[in-house]
Amino acid sequence: MNYSDKQNIEAFQSLVRADLDSLEGSLQTALSSRVPLIREICQYIEDTPGKRLRPTCLFLAGRSSGNGHVDMIPAGLAVELIHTATLLHDDIVDRHSTRRGKPTVYAKWGNRIATIMGDFLYSKAFACLGEAGLFDVMEILARVTHVISEGEMLQFQYSRDINVSEDGYLEMIYKKTASLFSASCECGAALGGNGNGHRPRFSRFGENIGLAFQITDDLFDYLAIDKHIGKPTASDFSDGRVTLPFITSFRNAPDRAKRWISDLFGTGTDVDEHWDEVVSFVQEYGGVEYAMNMARDFGEKAKGSLLHVEPSRERDALCFAADYVVRRVDPFSK
Amino acid sequence: MNYSDKQNIEAFQSLVRADLDSLEGSLQTALSSRVPLIREICQYIEDTPGKRLRPTCLFLAGRSSGNGHVDMIPAGLAVELIHTATLLHDDIVDRHSTRRGKPTVYAKWGNRIATIMGDFLYSKAFACLGEAGLFDVMEILARVTHVISEGEMLQFQYSRDINVSEDGYLEMIYKKTASLFSASCECGAALGGNGNGHRPRFSRFGENIGLAFQITDDLFDYLAIDKHIGKPTASDFSDGRVTLPFITSFRNAPDRAKRWISDLFGTGTDVDEHWDEVVSFVQEYGGVEYAMNMARDFGEKAKGSLLHVEPSRERDALCFAADYVVRRVDPFSK
Repeated sequence: MNYSDKQNIEAFQSLVRADLDSLEGSLQTALSSRVPLIREICQYIEDTPGKRLRPTCLFLAGRSSGNGHVDMIPAGLAVELIHTATLLHDDIVDRHSTRRGKPTVYAKWGNRIATIMGDFLYSKAFACLGEAGLFDVMEILARVTHVISEGEMLQFQYSRDINVSEDGYLEMIYKKTASLFSASCECGAALGGNGNGHRPRFSRFGENIGLAFQITDDLFDYLAIDKHIGKPTASDFSDGRVTLPFITSFRNAPDRAKRWISDLFGTGTDVDEHWDEVVSFVQEYGGVEYAMNMARDFGEKAKGSLLHVEPSRERDALCFAADYVVRRVDPFSK
Repeated sequence: MNYSDKQNIEAFQSLVRADLDSLEGSLQTALSSRVPLIREICQYIEDTPGKRLRPTCLFLAGRSSGNGHVDMIPAGLAVELIHTATLLHDDIVDRHSTRRGKPTVYAKWGNRIATIMGDFLYSKAFACLGEAGLFDVMEILARVTHVISEGEMLQFQYSRDINVSEDGYLEMIYKKTASLFSASCECGAALGGNGNGHRPRFSRFGENIGLAFQITDDLFDYLAIDKHIGKPTASDFSDGRVTLPFITSFRNAPDRAKRWISDLFGTGTDVDEHWDEVVSFVQEYGGVEYAMNMARDFGEKAKGSLLHVEPSRERDALCFAADYVVRRVDPFSK
């Protein structure tokens, strides 16, 4: 995360800083356990905390929907716990060795412990919601957790497949990423006081900002700008995962170039050496521009979803986030 | 499962046969997915179905508690899905290669797919409950799923540890096994029409029958009778897991015998060759009798929990099950 990221995220979060501070306290409590190894691993995870983007969306959506009384903290907690559980199991499936600049739980303790810890966090999320009696939220998050597991399986199936379609990619990133942003925003709206009309609006906002977020995240690999994220260059591609910029260029490229890149993709191991050429391939055949445009469209759709929500500073903060998610990769709007 | 098991389970299930038949239909629907690999694995799992003991407990508890109108099928479904998810992740943690006489999902598809499939089934359980609006049940099952994950971690920590205490063992089998029986019975009572007074009674019943069930299951390894279950002889012990019969005898044995068995346990690999001697060790120092007595006590406690529940054939079926769970290993009561 560079300086500009940090500043923008702080601006995004400033209106719900008090909620986020309470969340930290609740996380501490939720991640305690009588079982020593569980305590140790929870501590390890929380030593490099995430950016709490999903709870921030939830709190802002709740406050934009008129929430002034219902306690939203258990809902924000549940969303963050589910997100963390997803990462733990994701790292097993993708065999990631590092995350946030240090070894993953999977790499450090092995897949068996990482499986148990994911289950521990998933179930903790739902146990906290049950205790707080937030049954609407529980229903939304149960549904989305199921969608995420389908997305995980799709990603697994698409790995080492160079012929993934744009629709397949979009379905996968919706299920793996956007669905939880959508659910977070919907949970906020469900806890708000302005009736159920807001739920589909915030749900659509979350879906679209989530899609924009994942597409721009996938774009970083193909941009010649400083990297904001902790992943090694070419990791998606050399791990056998194609993303929107590549999918587009592969569709557009002439047969000769297609054959060359297919052979390279097939070998897997040579990719790091030839990474510059892969980036040139993607840039030459229009993949970067296409993905950038699509991210921009999703960002606009996100903002459009909130047009009929009463104006408020919290609503504006969500729209600011939609702009920022796109702007961070867009050289023309900096 | 031998002939007498089959007969006894049929008797236990006869009063809720219609519920169990509906359950099969719901399972078919729940285990469908647009993702082909998920469908394939669900089919593989359901080709050798379990005995549906937990949903049976739930349905009988519900009908003993006056249920005549609330649809209990989604609750039975959720309990069975959670049980199946637990087995999938359990097989990863314990590296089990076979279950119900065929390769585990873990062995056939690898730990990554087994992780995703467990998540798929867990989340499906909660999604179905949310859809059905069974929030009491959701709360009970969220809590228990969390307890199960702690039990899984305890089991992992206790593996290769010969000094596990009786209390440690009991905590572990409560968390890993008895808690879900307890929750199943409590869910049934929560859906019954006789008020909340029944919930703790059925919860206690489930806890005690669950403890009796696991202790007798662990006893089979040390009995010189036909084996009823699909596990290879000595598997728990040679995998480094000690159970109540062993724990008791190890506590009672003189130092010389303790040293011998510790050395054998430490090597792991030699166990199958020396298995007869391990069985003799456990039988000689009282472990079998002690565990048998404890299982009998838990069986009696289970029945005692239902003393103040109105008499009904369904309540009697639960008591019959408590007797049977113990009787199946008890040479004096056949």
